[in-house]
This record gives sequence, structure tokens and C-alpha cells, in this order.
Amino acid sequence: MHESEVIERLRRIASAPEARGLTDDVALIDGLVVSHDSIAEGVHFFPFDPPASVGWKLVGVNLSDLAAKGASPAGALLSLTISGDGEWESEFLTGIEQACESYGLPLIGGDTIALPKGAPRVLGMTVLGRAGEHVPARSGGHAGDVLWLVGTVGDAACGLQLLLDDAGSAGPLVDSYRRPLPLLGPGQAIGPLARAMMDVSDGLLLDATRLGDASDCGVEIELAALPLSPAFVEARGDGKGARLFAATGGDDYVLLAALPPDADPETLCLPQAARITRIGALTAGGSLSLSWNGAKVELPERLGFEHSGKSAEQDPAAPVADRP
Amino acid sequence: MHESEVIERLRRIASAPEARGLTDDVALIDGLVVSHDSIAEGVHFFPFDPPASVGWKLVGVNLSDLAAKGASPAGALLSLTISGDGEWESEFLTGIEQACESYGLPLIGGDTIALPKGAPRVLGMTVLGRAGEHVPARSGGHAGDVLWLVGTVGDAACGLQLLLDDAGSAGPLVDSYRRPLPLLGPGQAIGPLARAMMDVSDGLLLDATRLGDASDCGVEIELAALPLSPAFVEARGDGKGARLFAATGGDDYVLLAALPPDADPETLCLPQAARITRIGALTAGGSLSLSWNGAKVELPERLGFEHSGKSAEQDPAAPVADRP
Repeated sequence: MHESEVIERLRRIASAPEARGLTDDVALIDGLVVSHDSIAEGVHFFPFDPPASVGWKLVGVNLSDLAAKGASPAGALLSLTISGDGEWESEFLTGIEQACESYGLPLIGGDTIALPKGAPRVLGMTVLGRAGEHVPARSGGHAGDVLWLVGTVGDAACGLQLLLDDAGSAGPLVDSYRRPLPLLGPGQAIGPLARAMMDVSDGLLLDATRLGDASDCGVEIELAALPLSPAFVEARGDGKGARLFAATGGDDYVLLAALPPDADPETLCLPQAARITRIGALTAGGSLSLSWNGAKVELPERLGFEHSGKSAEQDPAAPVADRP
Repeated sequence: MHESEVIERLRRIASAPEARGLTDDVALIDGLVVSHDSIAEGVHFFPFDPPASVGWKLVGVNLSDLAAKGASPAGALLSLTISGDGEWESEFLTGIEQACESYGLPLIGGDTIALPKGAPRVLGMTVLGRAGEHVPARSGGHAGDVLWLVGTVGDAACGLQLLLDDAGSAGPLVDSYRRPLPLLGPGQAIGPLARAMMDVSDGLLLDATRLGDASDCGVEIELAALPLSPAFVEARGDGKGARLFAATGGDDYVLLAALPPDADPETLCLPQAARITRIGALTAGGSLSLSWNGAKVELPERLGFEHSGKSAEQDPAAPVADRP
């Protein structure tokens, strides 16, 4: 039985309406949006990553799921494993604490267990958020809706590549990879307008296809419209190749929303100086189509990362192979 | 930094009232009781345990936390790791599904991640339950309250010992260890009467001490009163030594409640033919004291298992050392 079959099996078990078919990253129960994300050493983070950044990232990726539903943080449960002398875990908790304080997320429970000696760490978090009046699903998009992106893409993928090339790399791109900033404020501002919304974590093209599939629509994206950061452009340029890299890299934790054509989110008062950009549209039927300044572009072989199996395991050059 | 310091640190971070000081196994938020428990291969279960029983146990131990607060199951999020070809995980999901169906627990979300090759599995579950009007904490007991136990103790510890002696062991005691039955119905029935309540998972004497400490009371327990199952008595007898073994073994997942002296839970209509037994009392000051037919008994060196580090790791003879 393959991993995809295991997940198919899970979907069949999770038949309750609160589960939203397990296609939405979150469950909705009694007005609370609930989500769980786990990360494993050597798969989602490097053994050499600063432990505090791993703690920050665990909080960040979980809060990004709340952001995508326009919810506000209400509480978190931490699943902590202890492997070794506890030094790593202590620094990890510093990152957890920093991120929880930054976003007003109270840590309200969890579990701490010991691991067999030398076992890779597996860390998990369940977040609960209070939902607004409208909780946009992935599946609510209509043909003709405009696709908007909040934030820039490609920074984290670029940062990951820098770390794969040199574990000592630093700077804003590495920070984007290690310390994602969940877009809670923008999510709450745009949520009431959005017909469909999700966070982009596995690559824009893959996640946009998922939103389109869930909404029974095709997706058109204009590569030239993709918002890039100055640091990204400095590192990779802003040509077609750079934009395809940005659109298929993972770990962005930005927001993708399908809004009715008459909605104008640029007039919203968005917090955190968030950049919102029109990048495409949903279409009647079809699947994903890409353009570059209006001309059709062939789809890349890989649209993103399936099942969040990012980083080290996918690159044989990654230092994860050196772990004892 | 030791494990206990990591946990102390966690308590300081978790200062929100919903966290209940992390001493209560559960958080309480917007009328929902929320709990998370994780288990690791080689620590909380054996690599040779049937995967379906591991799935059942993960649900059972989580639901036991809801039972201890008199809550009813509302939903669960599963943190699933995939290590290998997925066969183990498929059988594991069968156990998850069986337990969820048995207790009316909808699976509503979670996360599935790949682990590095050969890594021990780490599985987690967050459960949400709807609280009754009164959610008994550990800390509500008063001196003079009577301690009641729902269920029998020692069966699971006896089953674990059978498995350590012979991995092929089977029967009701092994079933108690592998497939705990959360006492949801009794918890809901007794919850409204209870001043303090918790589930017994790390050994009765240790958990009773925790309830006493949280309630700022001492604890008296009469060993002769401890309820034992016929299978336990057949295997170990019912003498003082057997009762000390039962009172310090882990994995019981039964309920311990402190009730006012005038409450008579034996008149309650308890579901599931649950056995409720008066085993002692809370006292003003002091710590734990044990008696055997009224005569004081010296405390055993170990009252139970700290931090749920049960089973294999604690016994060098355990087959876990053989895992590839």
C-alpha cells in the first residue's frame, strides 16, 4: 500500500462534515477552526537548523492554516519529543515561545514523550482558532473569480537552496525558509470577501491546482504577474525561469484567494504591509494553464511538493545524510 | 537541561487559564475539552505489537482523557507518520477506525508525514470533547472527600509483563494492555458529582498522589479495597504483593474521583457494567499513606511511571532492543 493509498483510506474514514473531506487543512467544530501539522527532523528541517527556528516554524506553519481561513489564534497544543539531553528542546521552546508571543497564541496543552536514543525528532502542533462569520473553504471558487496572492513567492525555496549549497548561509531568504510569517491579519481582512482561500505551502502551481480542483474549475496564472521580493530578484532575477522556480518552490506560507470579479481587495486596509497581487483567474473546466506576458507557457514537470515531503530527503546532496 | 526542566519550562510558557497549568491532561476552550497524546515505537508500544492494536490504543488513551473530564467525544485529529511501505500504517488505520466507530468519535483532520527510513514511528492524536456543565479538575478535592475508582487496576501491567516474558502472549490481560477501553459513560455519569477526577494511566499510587498534590491534600489508600479482575487474581493472586504491583503498574486507563463524603455513586446507573469501588480518602495535609486491612504499609520505592515512559525502554529484556 502506497502513501497515497494510506491518505485515500484516511479520507474515507474521515467522513464527518466537520472534516471537510480532509481537503481543507482545517476542521471546523463549534465555531473553532482546528488544524494539526507535524514536522520530522531530516524531512521538514535539517539537524543543523537552529532549534529556535524549528520551534518558530512549527508555530508559523500551523498559524498559516488559521490565516487561510480568516481565523484568529485561540490556543495551541504542542506534541514535544525529547531525544538526547534536552538542550535542543530547550532552544526549540524558545522559538515556540517567541512565535506564540508574537502572534498572541496561548499554549494550552500537549504532550511530552521520550524517544528511543538517536531517533529523529518528530514535533507536532494542534492550533485552534476562532472563526469569523465566513470560513472560506478551498472548494468555494467559481469560474470567473479572480485569483489574488498575498505575499511573495519563491523566497523560502531560494533560502532552502542556499542552505543545501552551504549550511552556513544566512540572510532574508534563509529567514523566509526558517521563520515563515503567517499572514493572520490579511487572512482576517480578506476572508469575508473570499469565495475560496488556502495557504500556499507546497508550491503555488500545485496549491492553485488543488484550489481549482476542489472548486471544480480550471486555473489560469500569469507568470509575469507573480510578486517577487527584492532579495529573490537579486538572487535569481525575474525572468521566466526564476518565476517558474518561485511558482513551484515550497514553504511560502502565503495566501491564495479566489474573489468575485467585482471585489477589489486592494482597497482593503491590510495590516503588516501585506502585498496583494492579482495573478490569474478561475476558469470553467480545464486544468492549470500558465502564461508569460499573455503567451501560453508549457507546464513544468513538477508543480510543487506532494505531501509536504520537502527539503532534505528530496536532495541527495542534503546534509541530512550525515546525521549519526 | 533534563526532561523535567523541559517540562517545567513548558509549564511557565503555558500560563493561559485555558491550560489549567498543564496539570490536568486537558485544556478547556469555548466549551470544548481538548487533549493531545503521542506514542512512540519502542517506548509506548512494541515493534511487534499488532498495528491495529496500536491504533486502537492511541484512540483509547486519548478518549480516556475526555472520560476523566466527563466530556463526550466530538472529534479527533490524527498525526500519522509513514515509515516504510505503508502496510503497517494501513493496519494501524484499521484499529483507529474500529475505535473511532466504537466510541462515536469522528476523525476530522490531522497530518500525514513521511519519516526518514528506519525511524521509529511517532503517532499522535488530538481529541476534542464537548464538556458537561461541570468539568472536574485534578485540583478540586477537599480533605474528607472519598476516593472512588472506576474499573480494575493491574490488568494492563500484568499483560505487559506477559508480553515481556513472551512476545506471543495473548488473553484478557494482554488485551487490557493493548486495547484499553476508555470509560466515557462512567466519566459522564460521575463527572457532575466529582470534586476532582483524573484517569489513572501511570500507576494508581502515582496518579493519586498527583490528584492529592493538585488538591493540596494528602491521600489514604486501602490496598485491600483495590478492585482486581478475575484474570488478574488468577495470574497474580490477591495478596499484598499482587496489590502493590497492581497499584504501581501503568496503562490502566481507569478513573479516579474524589467525591464529597455524602455522595453515593453506587446508586448511579453506570453504563458498561462499570465497577465503582471506594478505595480511600483525601486528608488534610500529609502525602500518600497506604494501609493493608487497616494496618499501615510502607510505600514502595516506585509509585508508578513518570512521564509515561512505559514499557520497553524501561526493561532491558524488552524485545525493543532487537528492532532493526
